[in-house]
Amino acid sequence: MEQPAMSYIRVFAPATVANVVCGFDVLGFAVETPGDEVELFVVSQPGVRIRAIYGDNGRLPLDPEKNTVSASVMHYLQQIGREDLGIEIVLHKRMPVGSGMGSSAASTVAGLFAIHHLMGQPLSTADLLQLAVEGEQLACGQGHADNVAPALLGGFVLIRSYHPLDVIQLPTPESLICALLHPHIEIQTRDARKILKPYVPLSDVTIQMGNLAGFISALYNQDFALLSRCMQDVIIEPVRSILIPEYQSMKSIALSGGALGFGISGSGPSVFALCHEVSTAETILSRLQAHLQQHHIASDIFISPINRQGPRLLDVRETVHKS
Amino acid sequence: MEQPAMSYIRVFAPATVANVVCGFDVLGFAVETPGDEVELFVVSQPGVRIRAIYGDNGRLPLDPEKNTVSASVMHYLQQIGREDLGIEIVLHKRMPVGSGMGSSAASTVAGLFAIHHLMGQPLSTADLLQLAVEGEQLACGQGHADNVAPALLGGFVLIRSYHPLDVIQLPTPESLICALLHPHIEIQTRDARKILKPYVPLSDVTIQMGNLAGFISALYNQDFALLSRCMQDVIIEPVRSILIPEYQSMKSIALSGGALGFGISGSGPSVFALCHEVSTAETILSRLQAHLQQHHIASDIFISPINRQGPRLLDVRETVHKS
Repeated sequence: MEQPAMSYIRVFAPATVANVVCGFDVLGFAVETPGDEVELFVVSQPGVRIRAIYGDNGRLPLDPEKNTVSASVMHYLQQIGREDLGIEIVLHKRMPVGSGMGSSAASTVAGLFAIHHLMGQPLSTADLLQLAVEGEQLACGQGHADNVAPALLGGFVLIRSYHPLDVIQLPTPESLICALLHPHIEIQTRDARKILKPYVPLSDVTIQMGNLAGFISALYNQDFALLSRCMQDVIIEPVRSILIPEYQSMKSIALSGGALGFGISGSGPSVFALCHEVSTAETILSRLQAHLQQHHIASDIFISPINRQGPRLLDVRETVHKS
Repeated sequence: MEQPAMSYIRVFAPATVANVVCGFDVLGFAVETPGDEVELFVVSQPGVRIRAIYGDNGRLPLDPEKNTVSASVMHYLQQIGREDLGIEIVLHKRMPVGSGMGSSAASTVAGLFAIHHLMGQPLSTADLLQLAVEGEQLACGQGHADNVAPALLGGFVLIRSYHPLDVIQLPTPESLICALLHPHIEIQTRDARKILKPYVPLSDVTIQMGNLAGFISALYNQDFALLSRCMQDVIIEPVRSILIPEYQSMKSIALSGGALGFGISGSGPSVFALCHEVSTAETILSRLQAHLQQHHIASDIFISPINRQGPRLLDVRETVHKS
């Protein structure tokens, strides 16, 4: 029986901002920080098991069938016909769970990227993406690619179609900085979806389509004034923002502080701002955090360039065993 | 009193395809042919009058307040404070009225472009566009920029926003050919709009947004396979196509004949296909025309590259009179 070419791997996969204000369910981007780390250990006993999860305060399932990392790794091994292997997983949760920053997508992509490299990359990136969407389905009940695709591919990504999956990598301007704030309240993705109105006025569809199309154009032209004008959402934000305390105040603080745009990250409760400068992002985040403190809401903040690479290898121990 | 620097001008302005399948109310492009021609004569008697309209079978109003060309010219002269001038207009209608090819937009833009050049271009292109949208309002009851903007600017144009007007010129791949067919039936823009459902399922909005965003990306990357995949409309076509006899058959003929995409031009009844090659466009149009003939529907056909320039001067007689 052939053994993999490495017996240990450690990888990082990034958090992601889905929707990006004007691109509900079709647009997302990855950040450099935060993100998750996954370690895989090849062991002799067949099967996929979770050895430990750190940083989740005991919230994530250890059952390998129910955890998105182990389930995705198992799925991968099925795909390549290597269910005979023994893999033990350590997940280092380095970002808040249920925060709207693509927490499960980061774990899923980290697990898949790790096993993919451990096995010598026998599948295509398109295959990997398909497995990641299916893994996300496990975690969220829906296979939304707008977190897993940017987590896997890096940069801004368009999900042109879900059936069939059609994903387009968009240009990612180097100078964009993402400011992320996670208020310590929790919204389940399922609830954030249930609250949405099932029908949208046609006139709002036109407004949203103009903004999304303009946003895509702005990425190609690196036109930040246009990008800023396009970061408006008449469909989702008016509904979901009511789940986030102090949302309108935070938006005013961010925009008056020089953000190009401000909105809900994914289904919330995290919020994000795109900025030109690190200093702008720092000022905005400290003002937002101070404002929330006045309302007795604690928060985490993150400042990051756009991640252009997707996941990355942190450590590999190559001990080739071929039988 | 200062006289304009020229006493006669003749201009051409192009027909346009609005909506472009996936970009309802926000996307349009101009073609090289057909289009309208407008002649302006400077005369001594103040006021704007229509001397003649050719090619409209008497359908367009001669009342200068009600005709989009004369009304736009009057509006232009008001803007620059030259209502003292005398202008007589001849409109050569070189395209079918009420066809969905931006007939009134071509006339409006031709009139404005003519008076603009006659007066030495004292306004900006943005001003001209605003006047054109207001002129279109006169003709269609709504100020839809998705015909007038491409007619004025040429190429593919995105209407990012109507209020305020925010128009973005998109890249226009050189190799695209537009096949247009005008079946001899008539749909009023007002009726074609009334038939639309006022609310759209959110799931359809996501599909349409993915396609529009992908279409914009395809224009920037000259990715014709992607362009083709994006030319799908789940919102407008299912409703409006029922007003166009043999629509589904025509679509099958076009797509099986190698069109990149097929759809309703503007609010119809004209239909269009985007193709790679003139020969493909020719074959498709002759098959479509033959199919309609079997159903006793006559039609006009046009094959054209995308117009990249907008309107153009055909004749200018410079007779400078300054007082």
